[in-house]
Amino acid sequence: MPVTNGKVIFNSVPEGYPEPGKTTVYDDSEQIDLESVPIPDGGFLVKTLYLSVDPYMRGRMREPTKKSYSPPFILGEPLTGHGVGVVLKSKSSEFKEGAHVYGVFKHQNYIVYPNRAGLIVLDNKQKLPWSYYVGAAGMPGKTAYMAWKEYSSSKKGETVFVSGGAGAVGSFVIQLAKIDGCKVIASAGSDEKVEFMKSIGADVAFNYKTSNTLDVLNEHGPIDIYWDNVGGPTLEAALEAANTNARFIECGMISGYNTAGGAPIKNIIHVVSKSISMFGFIVSRLEHKYDEQFYKEVPELIAAGKLKVLEDVFEGLASVGDAILAVQKGTNKGKAVVRVADQ
Amino acid sequence: MPVTNGKVIFNSVPEGYPEPGKTTVYDDSEQIDLESVPIPDGGFLVKTLYLSVDPYMRGRMREPTKKSYSPPFILGEPLTGHGVGVVLKSKSSEFKEGAHVYGVFKHQNYIVYPNRAGLIVLDNKQKLPWSYYVGAAGMPGKTAYMAWKEYSSSKKGETVFVSGGAGAVGSFVIQLAKIDGCKVIASAGSDEKVEFMKSIGADVAFNYKTSNTLDVLNEHGPIDIYWDNVGGPTLEAALEAANTNARFIECGMISGYNTAGGAPIKNIIHVVSKSISMFGFIVSRLEHKYDEQFYKEVPELIAAGKLKVLEDVFEGLASVGDAILAVQKGTNKGKAVVRVADQ
Repeated sequence: MPVTNGKVIFNSVPEGYPEPGKTTVYDDSEQIDLESVPIPDGGFLVKTLYLSVDPYMRGRMREPTKKSYSPPFILGEPLTGHGVGVVLKSKSSEFKEGAHVYGVFKHQNYIVYPNRAGLIVLDNKQKLPWSYYVGAAGMPGKTAYMAWKEYSSSKKGETVFVSGGAGAVGSFVIQLAKIDGCKVIASAGSDEKVEFMKSIGADVAFNYKTSNTLDVLNEHGPIDIYWDNVGGPTLEAALEAANTNARFIECGMISGYNTAGGAPIKNIIHVVSKSISMFGFIVSRLEHKYDEQFYKEVPELIAAGKLKVLEDVFEGLASVGDAILAVQKGTNKGKAVVRVADQ
Repeated sequence: MPVTNGKVIFNSVPEGYPEPGKTTVYDDSEQIDLESVPIPDGGFLVKTLYLSVDPYMRGRMREPTKKSYSPPFILGEPLTGHGVGVVLKSKSSEFKEGAHVYGVFKHQNYIVYPNRAGLIVLDNKQKLPWSYYVGAAGMPGKTAYMAWKEYSSSKKGETVFVSGGAGAVGSFVIQLAKIDGCKVIASAGSDEKVEFMKSIGADVAFNYKTSNTLDVLNEHGPIDIYWDNVGGPTLEAALEAANTNARFIECGMISGYNTAGGAPIKNIIHVVSKSISMFGFIVSRLEHKYDEQFYKEVPELIAAGKLKVLEDVFEGLASVGDAILAVQKGTNKGKAVVRVADQ
């Protein structure tokens, strides 16, 4: 008997913030018969459980002529992003019925994969909530963990500044920096987020909307490592307060995602005068190097309570548009996850 | 019998371009008796032959409260910079009378070094002009050679853009990139410089004052490696035309040295969207790793005519101020060197 196979379509390229119902549209017109749907040899049918909604997705909502590290979403087609699902039917020896899988999902209830398509099977020995595998134990966690290992060259006693410190990536970075014996300054956009950042170990946490970032950095800096999630005036302040030989890990610049690139940077000259290294990166290129170590360590750290996780769960595929907007505006409280189905 | 021991004094912090006679002043009031000047044990007396004048010196002409990788010049004291000299008298077993030495010199005719003070003895097997040891075989050459080896990750067939391509560093980089099998686009500020860049192997050379940089880069790019000597709008164009995973070697930003930091950069977001790495650096930190290799290879390459060198020689210590201004304005034709004495 056919069931609804809902999906979230990329409907139009946004000018500013993405608008639910306009930029993205939930479409429940498609049906699927889970019993009779054809599955090719080596393929399998997956039911989507959790989808990740992340800041970088805004960059994919562009005209396809613009170049970037991540491919543009295709107008009229479902969004894609990291997800966790369960295998319902399988003609694959590796992806067996009942297995939980992680990888890039269409934003859709049911997906037939013709082959492994980059997915992995999750063993989840620690019995973590499955949603964690799109958060701290998924792409955002990998982003924090792998780029920190690759680029920070952190030394005990160094001072680290993390912007967007209450987000999925930033909150992980704060905790990694503390594990490495660094002093951590962290910023976010609400007093509630400031409290959260303190609760996970930030030595200095402030609300950039009510405090002057440069004043805080001058008081508690200079900065040896800057983890940048926001760009714009915060990046300018970090350049101003940077120590010689500082490392800038350029994870994101969300302040510019919805405003045509954001505010200009007036003091990039410090890259030269202070011998700063700046690293833009794409986490998928670091995975081959760190994936094994990541899955060995991180679920264990979470299970042991040594890595604290905060989630903001949006209910149902139809809420993807709201989750996207919340993440762009920073109104989410913790890692934004869409619960498509429980099991 | 005492002789004049002329020196060039740092006299005032400039606002815009450094002014000869105001920012720096030639002072010939000091005398020295070369026969009787006291030399401590382990020390030696050096006569200055050639002094290097380089773009970065503008950054040292600042208020001492501003931080940078190179220490500020001290008001009322002689400038310092790289030089070559000859040992006139010695109480050192290493720095013998008649030896030619390279290192950081005061801008002065005669200097008593109380100890080795970071100097090295040049053997100059290839009998190159001594001035080359402050140019292609000195600090600017090391800047090009060592940072290229350390940061470029060049692969055959990649496209390299070099701004300031007619200068001491840029012209060396063009030739290094060609040796590595790259395609080279190079810019400078006069048609004469464009001809010079072509003569040393640039595949595409253009005058940024009469051509639109972004148009040229779009036609011949995208860019895999950008060697930046200038910053400002040229850096913006390079970010715009950069390929994914491009490396930006941030050697200098002369467009901002005389205008309080220069024009703002409006598209730094490409560091994130294109996974760009940007490297500010200071050559002295790379020397321990590459010095031996450098002195083994580079004088030989020059002697064999495989590395072409162009010099612009200013005559006498009193011309230091003019040389500094020429380098900041880019009116020098080749590596700016001050000939203080022939031998």
